[in-house]
Amino acid sequence: MPEKIDNNSVGLVTPEKFHCSEPISLSCGEVLPEFDIVYECYGTLNSNKSNALLICHALSGDHHVAGYHTWEDEKPGWWDRFIGPGKVFDTDRFFIVCCNNLGGCSGSTGPTTTNPINGNRYGPDFPLVTVSDWVESQARLADHLGIEAWLAVVGGSLGGMQAMQWSVDQPDRIKNAIVIAAAPKLTAQNIAFNEVARQAILTDPNFFEGRYYEHSVQPDRGLRLARMLGHITYLSDDSMAKKFGRDLRQGKINFDYGVEFEIERYLRYQGDQFVGRFDANSYLLITKVLDYYDPEGTEKCSLAEVFSRAKCDFLVVSFSTDWRFSPARSKKIIKALHDNGLNVSYGEVKSSQGHDSFLMTIPQYIEIIRSYMDKLAASL
Amino acid sequence: MPEKIDNNSVGLVTPEKFHCSEPISLSCGEVLPEFDIVYECYGTLNSNKSNALLICHALSGDHHVAGYHTWEDEKPGWWDRFIGPGKVFDTDRFFIVCCNNLGGCSGSTGPTTTNPINGNRYGPDFPLVTVSDWVESQARLADHLGIEAWLAVVGGSLGGMQAMQWSVDQPDRIKNAIVIAAAPKLTAQNIAFNEVARQAILTDPNFFEGRYYEHSVQPDRGLRLARMLGHITYLSDDSMAKKFGRDLRQGKINFDYGVEFEIERYLRYQGDQFVGRFDANSYLLITKVLDYYDPEGTEKCSLAEVFSRAKCDFLVVSFSTDWRFSPARSKKIIKALHDNGLNVSYGEVKSSQGHDSFLMTIPQYIEIIRSYMDKLAASL
Repeated sequence: MPEKIDNNSVGLVTPEKFHCSEPISLSCGEVLPEFDIVYECYGTLNSNKSNALLICHALSGDHHVAGYHTWEDEKPGWWDRFIGPGKVFDTDRFFIVCCNNLGGCSGSTGPTTTNPINGNRYGPDFPLVTVSDWVESQARLADHLGIEAWLAVVGGSLGGMQAMQWSVDQPDRIKNAIVIAAAPKLTAQNIAFNEVARQAILTDPNFFEGRYYEHSVQPDRGLRLARMLGHITYLSDDSMAKKFGRDLRQGKINFDYGVEFEIERYLRYQGDQFVGRFDANSYLLITKVLDYYDPEGTEKCSLAEVFSRAKCDFLVVSFSTDWRFSPARSKKIIKALHDNGLNVSYGEVKSSQGHDSFLMTIPQYIEIIRSYMDKLAASL
Repeated sequence: MPEKIDNNSVGLVTPEKFHCSEPISLSCGEVLPEFDIVYECYGTLNSNKSNALLICHALSGDHHVAGYHTWEDEKPGWWDRFIGPGKVFDTDRFFIVCCNNLGGCSGSTGPTTTNPINGNRYGPDFPLVTVSDWVESQARLADHLGIEAWLAVVGGSLGGMQAMQWSVDQPDRIKNAIVIAAAPKLTAQNIAFNEVARQAILTDPNFFEGRYYEHSVQPDRGLRLARMLGHITYLSDDSMAKKFGRDLRQGKINFDYGVEFEIERYLRYQGDQFVGRFDANSYLLITKVLDYYDPEGTEKCSLAEVFSRAKCDFLVVSFSTDWRFSPARSKKIIKALHDNGLNVSYGEVKSSQGHDSFLMTIPQYIEIIRSYMDKLAASL
């Protein structure tokens, strides 16, 4: 193991692929005749298969949540600081699974993969999916792995929505839902940001109605803008002020449209990095999964009624400066859970880092997760 | 006067043009050999020329602040509800002037006008200007109108920054500064939003490095995105929730990228309306005026030291849900004014409508302005 790797890394990991040849009926009414789910596992499943955790990824994440694919990788998986021997999601105690969601672009069936019916890429013909569709596909993966019930389903942001939906769609197959920096549905403002991001992609001349693969181009300009805009909503006003302030890149203003302020450099860098690693059709699709998520609206009943089907225990975590999914949004979830007499632990973490906090090793946050996971480990 | 026109309208108005043949030295170091300023006036200048108000416009505003150019106009000027006989800026008592700022696109010299040196449109060669440059050009207009000192310089948002800058650049020519929904400088988050808007325009394939006029196209896609994004920051999360919520345009989700939510319709409409009425080079330039505004940074001293040159009285107004320029930002201004022993009135208006509140006739807001203006009228 090279020196740069921390001692508690899961080390080298290899993604696996689950091919499901059973058709899946989607919320939109369409049916996928078969599909692939790419996933990674860390740790060891115990003999009675009671120590399995499912980690759900958010908008731009994937199945590669911890460790390295090669020792040359610049970065480990996206939640590496949380997963490994001795870490909060302790691979010495838990068997941890994370999959790339249906419609994603990291190997699971989605816009970039081949439609078995006609041999062409799905592209824009890939149907729009919902959080419930993801839960169903993840349940198929659980079947494949022989996991009857997850000890916990865990996720931040859109991942938290999946954890919530597991509790109501598959109440017998989840013991705990760990819902971090999430909301029971998007606000109009949340949808508005997604809409501007989508319009940036949809109006990019290289989008070609989603058939850009056939033109050997990508709507890079649009995807880059979408990502830049996303990053504004991931940080808090405070954290941006602390990180960048009004610092000038060259110590002075130049009276032109090059990079002048540090925040401009940061956003352009984030946008540039994203292009090339993510597919625009997948990005569009996943913003729609977010917008559509609204169990109350879907079921035409109150959130408390939605959760009347849930049986598991809950840990809900929010962050003080998260203006994308504020603590007030988490409290709506908690209220609905309490109305059903469910066991709920709640932690509101004081953090200056906005929505992105859920990816950070903030001591108070780590402590909340760790003590919850210790309790779960003790119950095994 | 047609029936649709309110009784307190200033009625039909005609813009005028002031040609300044004296060169103006800009903050960036460049010199404009001559320039035009388009402006409108309402009311009557009294004999001792002591009743003149200068209204300063914000990002997308112009000189047409009240009344109609023709009776067929769909809408009156952008602050018509505030300006007219008996209104808060009472044309029976005050002589009111508003000009299109240098670099704008409504007739004043800017990217869309002709460079007298080479006979071509300025386009991207028009120099980037600052709030101080605007103050200087407005002072030239005051000279032209024979106004030695404004009774008040008034503005919301970027307009408020002009009012502030008047107080320090021209302390002997301003009696009152009315600074509404403004800030002493942009935060990193404010700059970030401007940067995404700019990148949308700059990366539009129809931008042609600002020389799109020569190609008979406009970077409409980029300008539309910039405007959509702007509108998110003008409204509060609350006002969006109240106005649009998660209302579906057709009562159901369609699993496609057409308009599904009302907020999407609103943003697309706002974007579409803006394209065609505004110039992309001017938009870029004015976002830079905003980003650059930072008297502390420019003068390398504290805000209190900046305001040590000010002599006028101040009315500062902020709005409770304005997250673009929050009340906390106004209080920074007030602190610096108080440190100099200046007379400051402050009103924090309870409003759900975010930054856009400054354009609305909110009773508490109207009352604050009216009582201040009554005091000024009494002093005449």
